Amino acid sequence: MFIDELIDKIKEKNNPTVVGLDPRIEYVPSVIRACAFHEHGENIKGAAEAIWIFNRRIIDSVHDVVPAVKPQLAYYEMYGVEGLRVFDRTVKYAKEKGLLVIADGKRNDIGSTAEAYSTAFLGKTQVDGGVFEEAFGADALTVNPYLGCDGISPFIEDCKKYEKGIFILVKTSNKSSGQLQDIVAQDGRSIYEIVAGHVAEWGQGVMGKYGYSSVGAVVGATYPEQAKILRGIMKNSYILVPGYGAQGGTAGDIANSFNKDGLGAIVNASRSIMCAYKSDIWKDRYGEDRFDEACRAEAIRMREDINSAI
Amino acid sequence: MFIDELIDKIKEKNNPTVVGLDPRIEYVPSVIRACAFHEHGENIKGAAEAIWIFNRRIIDSVHDVVPAVKPQLAYYEMYGVEGLRVFDRTVKYAKEKGLLVIADGKRNDIGSTAEAYSTAFLGKTQVDGGVFEEAFGADALTVNPYLGCDGISPFIEDCKKYEKGIFILVKTSNKSSGQLQDIVAQDGRSIYEIVAGHVAEWGQGVMGKYGYSSVGAVVGATYPEQAKILRGIMKNSYILVPGYGAQGGTAGDIANSFNKDGLGAIVNASRSIMCAYKSDIWKDRYGEDRFDEACRAEAIRMREDINSAI
Repeated sequence: MFIDELIDKIKEKNNPTVVGLDPRIEYVPSVIRACAFHEHGENIKGAAEAIWIFNRRIIDSVHDVVPAVKPQLAYYEMYGVEGLRVFDRTVKYAKEKGLLVIADGKRNDIGSTAEAYSTAFLGKTQVDGGVFEEAFGADALTVNPYLGCDGISPFIEDCKKYEKGIFILVKTSNKSSGQLQDIVAQDGRSIYEIVAGHVAEWGQGVMGKYGYSSVGAVVGATYPEQAKILRGIMKNSYILVPGYGAQGGTAGDIANSFNKDGLGAIVNASRSIMCAYKSDIWKDRYGEDRFDEACRAEAIRMREDINSAI
Repeated sequence: MFIDELIDKIKEKNNPTVVGLDPRIEYVPSVIRACAFHEHGENIKGAAEAIWIFNRRIIDSVHDVVPAVKPQLAYYEMYGVEGLRVFDRTVKYAKEKGLLVIADGKRNDIGSTAEAYSTAFLGKTQVDGGVFEEAFGADALTVNPYLGCDGISPFIEDCKKYEKGIFILVKTSNKSSGQLQDIVAQDGRSIYEIVAGHVAEWGQGVMGKYGYSSVGAVVGATYPEQAKILRGIMKNSYILVPGYGAQGGTAGDIANSFNKDGLGAIVNASRSIMCAYKSDIWKDRYGEDRFDEACRAEAIRMREDINSAI
């Protein structure tokens, strides 16, 4: 079961964090870029190849530190088919290295199409007759709740069938998240509280041995007060917390997303890890050439920072 | 400007409909499947190749009847990287044939990531220095509003910069769409009305010569009463209407989405066109071998059906 495997890895590594792989070509050290452009041309294929080398070295350097990685699909789609090929290779490589992979795609659609998305990322695609193949084969996927339960249930079915997980957007980390999510309904509850209630209910059918569900939630680090309320509503849901680091969320802000058992949340950082070699903390010790060591140092610093706050 | 080009094509073809390209391998006639599996193996690559041949023949057969096609990304992603390659070929081929392409991906994320999604489908990707390439190069994209304005504005910026369009989910066609979208806020407005208000406002900066905006909305054919209200709130927004045909929406239901000028909406049908050769109306006249003629016949029948109701 996804959630048990995630918690086992969190315990094993004593680390409730996840490295976001949201690569942009400008994050990639210049030597890697130059080699890839030299070999494949100064085009989208060259850029995709540079990103693949970058991702692979990050995975090599953090795979024994973190339980999971979270590639964000937008950053692969922007390099077209070649980008998706890199996404695919990244998922496979991370899994080979013992990491869980949370595909961050925020997918959503009506039931039959949600089923197709779920097949793409969590399930198996029927090729012909009895032949089935994995399309992308991630371990978990982020999804958007705007279409209600029949747009979510196909994902939950696959969580059961294939031992996968989902994280449903509840309260996102961006500035304008309140425009819709903070609207207060006539019963006095905000939209994010109502969605949280559904997440708690939807998760009941996929409970693991630690008392948590494979149906989790996304709650941004940038809204600690709301996180406290949401932690109370979704007692058995694992919370994926974006917004730490580059977006401004601190370890203190994040503590509200955890339960008293020290579990219940997993904190993501993307840019602060990927670009650690450019940061004030690490740039003097590690240059471009040792960017992967900077990633590892920052991943360890983040682990200590979060662990000290919870 | 996207919206002007769309309306020009609707007028030229006297047809406010769009063919949804949501292919599943089981829709593809058995001869095409057999050939593709024979050539590429009974695997995901063979399935993707069969779908490409299927799409190409549909486009060949309807390109002079409809103004646009709407490939749904989930059905390509479920065939992995090979599926995305077919999506890419389909977009390019449809454009070559003079069709507009609405990528149905319901993308959404925080600002910086929304920017990456927008680049992927509407913009151009910076490869290195001054080199830019299109990743997928669609004409328009569907997007989900759950993250509020800063998750939408990057798409609107690209609508301006690259003359593209978006359709924002307002009221979706599925049964459970009301679970979130029908919640009534304390000011008495439902969420779908509030979102519609934002769509109307966001669209003001991208107005075309016919008085419509390149920022449109998605309102399902299955909710005609809500469509009437929404038409009133979003007077200048083009409405993309899913749910006609296989999902149960009739031409009468759809009339509410149009304005008195006969413009303002474009109606999608996917399965009823793609699988026309299996339908009671067409199966006796066109067998599997002539599936593309059945698509054309159904596309023409749909055009007449919608035009007679508006």
